[in-house]
Order: sequence, then structure tokens, then C-alpha cells
Amino acid sequence: MVACFEAGIKLGALFHQFVGMPVGPANVELVERAIESCVKLQPFVENVEVRISREKLGEKVSGFGYTSLSPEMLEVRVTVSFEDCRVKAVLRWVEELKYPLMEVVRVERAGRE
Amino acid sequence: MVACFEAGIKLGALFHQFVGMPVGPANVELVERAIESCVKLQPFVENVEVRISREKLGEKVSGFGYTSLSPEMLEVRVTVSFEDCRVKAVLRWVEELKYPLMEVVRVERAGRE
Amino acid sequence: MVACFEAGIKLGALFHQFVGMPVGPANVELVERAIESCVKLQPFVENVEVRISREKLGEKVSGFGYTSLSPEMLEVRVTVSFEDCRVKAVLRWVEELKYPLMEVVRVERAGRE
Amino acid sequence: MVACFEAGIKLGALFHQFVGMPVGPANVELVERAIESCVKLQPFVENVEVRISREKLGEKVSGFGYTSLSPEMLEVRVTVSFEDCRVKAVLRWVEELKYPLMEVVRVERAGRE
Repeated sequence: MVACFEAGIKLGALFHQFVGMPVGPANVELVERAIESCVKLQPFVENVEVRISREKLGEKVSGFGYTSLSPEMLEVRVTVSFEDCRVKAVLRWVEELKYPLMEVVRVERAGRE
Repeated sequence: MVACFEAGIKLGALFHQFVGMPVGPANVELVERAIESCVKLQPFVENVEVRISREKLGEKVSGFGYTSLSPEMLEVRVTVSFEDCRVKAVLRWVEELKYPLMEVVRVERAGRE
Repeated sequence: MVACFEAGIKLGALFHQFVGMPVGPANVELVERAIESCVKLQPFVENVEVRISREKLGEKVSGFGYTSLSPEMLEVRVTVSFEDCRVKAVLRWVEELKYPLMEVVRVERAGRE
Repeated sequence: MVACFEAGIKLGALFHQFVGMPVGPANVELVERAIESCVKLQPFVENVEVRISREKLGEKVSGFGYTSLSPEMLEVRVTVSFEDCRVKAVLRWVEELKYPLMEVVRVERAGRE
């Protein structure tokens, strides 16, 4: 329960802190690593992977060679552990819903699974 | 579990979207209502109350009559319901930790409590 | 010069503070007024109008009935005065550039124009 | 005039995009470089230096080993060029005003100075 709550915090925080950030081919990897570094600082985070879709980035790039980070581009996987519970959650764009869906994809408990 | 995850999303999102927002005595109530309106749009939210501490706002106000919304000022209560589960969670500044703590304060299940 | 600098600050600030904010038909007017209230607090602002395109909002609304405020939706006019100089600047989406263009549209000096 | 406007945009944007970002001793350098990379993407930017005060960061760090990027910590210098005009502007915390002051510190025109 706490692990699920904490996983939700991480995804909600990441989305709303970084959407709007200037991003382009020149800094996309640095931006991914910086966002990951921010998530890793937060309590109970075991792992995080942030990926900005190069394909969607390419479609969005403006006449000035960059764009703002938009919900469609973000793919995030985060693993949070609290006491004997480990939760994996993801953020991904679901085109049919036009929505950046955040969901728990796995819950593991120590000793059982 | 889903309700806890969703409650976490709401608090993480609110904090990281709105910290930094210009706020002063002239617009603090409007800002509180606008933030609440944003949370209420999100899935599974039953209720939300956002309070910006007038005392802390007063201490922070700059020579220009306003400041940026800071973590210390925010007091939030949110209630999220998913299926038979209702979760109440809060965000409040904890001075000893120098941290905007987010925590689940109540979990209710339909028929039991 | 100072007035132009200050006008730039206001538009850059607005864009990067509020893009990502949850918005839908239910709160769009409140969001417009709240953003305006934030800009009005800032130094040297004489007037500001924020408009979120209802047409673009309608296109973007997700399966959950709302979306995140995106660069395409924002139309802003701000007037900043410093000493004898008044600057009007705008933020608007330019589809050909795929870019939220910010530009000075008028500079007036007291006594002349 | 355009260069001043553009310099204002960069500082307003930076402040409102990144305030609130999780930062601690472990990622502060990466955060500085990532913010710089975002500013460099923007039109007419010739140079930018972002510094997060280690002293203020140390004072603010929470019981969890990190904090949110706050206005007090930011020191930024940006140089913007447009046509024959180069503008240097800074963002720095002014304690007496309790305010993150943004100001133009130099304007140069080609051929003269």
C-alpha cells in the first residue's frame, strides 16, 4: 500500500515537473539522465528508467530545432520498495485515450510473489 | 492498492506543477481554488482541499508584494476512491524533516472500515 | 529596454509554469483567471489577457474528460510599463513553425509613439 | 530591444520550469548541465551558465538527503545575441528583497560598445 502510494508520487511528480522542458536531439540523452537522477533521490526508489521517444520528438521538433517535452513522448518505468513490498509502475502514452497513463504493472512481496 | 497509487499521483503532480507559481495576498484564494479545480479533473478524485498557509506566505512575501509558491506553504488533503476502496492522503510540511511529507492517513473499504 | 526584458520574463515564466496543468471544459475559465492573477502580481505589469483555445482544448481532451495545458492552446497578451516605455507582447502558437512564438508587437514611449 | 526581450524569456522560463525539481549533492552538477542544455536550445542564446549554490543547497537538504530546487539557490548568467546587439542578463537571489532578481547587466552593439 505504501509502496503503491510512493510509486504514484514519483510518476505524478516527474510528469508535472518536466513536461514543458526544452528538449531536442542535442540534449535528449542528458535530459533523460537528469530526470532519472531526480527520481532516484526520492525515498524508496529502487530503480527508474526514463525514455523520451525519439520518433515523437522528431515529429514535434519546431522550426528552431527543439520543442517542449510533451506527454506523448514520455516512457517511464519506476521500481519502488517499501518494507517487504516492491512495486513496478509505468507511465506511457495511450493513443486511444489521448492520455499519459500511469499504472502499477507488478507487485511483489518478499518470500512470495 | 490502486486507490493508494492514484492518491500518490495526485499529490506528486500537484506539488511539482504548482511550486514556483507567483502567489500573494491578492490572489491566494483564487490560486487555492484553481489548484483544487485541477485535481478534481483527475480520475477517481472524490474530494480535495488545498490550503496555502497565510502565515508562511506573509513571511515569504518579497519587496514586490508576492512570492513563489514554496513547499513550506502547502497543505493538501485529497480523497480518492477506486472500486470499494477510499483513501485519504495529505501533503504537509514537516519542519523537523525540512520536507513536504505526503502520506496516506486513512484507508476505508466498503462494508468494513 | 527594461520594459522589453520584463515582458520577456512574463511570457517565459507563464509558459513554463503552467504548461502541463490539468485543464478541461470544467475549469478552463478559472485557469485563465488564475494565470492572469499570477502575471498581474509581477513587477511592471499593466495588463494581461490569457486565453486557452476552446477549439484546441476540445481536440486534445482525453478519455478522462480533461488534458494537460499544451503550448498549442495558449494565447497571451501582456502589457508591461517601465518608466516612459510601454511594451505589448504576445504569445501565440504558430503552426508552420510548430512553435509557441513570443514577440513584442508594440513599443510606445510617453509623449511620442 | 529584441535581444532584451529574448533574454527575459530565457530567465523567466528557466526559473519557472525548474524550481521544484528534486536536487541534492548527488545530482547537482548533472542538474546544472541539464538546465544549461535546455537554455542553449533556445533561439539567440550565445552562452549560459547555471550555478546552484552548494551552501544554500546544504542548508535546505531534508532528512531524506535532497530538497526541491528553490529560488534562493539559483545563479544564472545568460548571453543573448540578436542582429548587432548582445545582452548579458543574470538571475540571482537578493536577500534584502527576498526576491530572485532578473536584470540586464550589459548591452553591447557591434562596432561600438
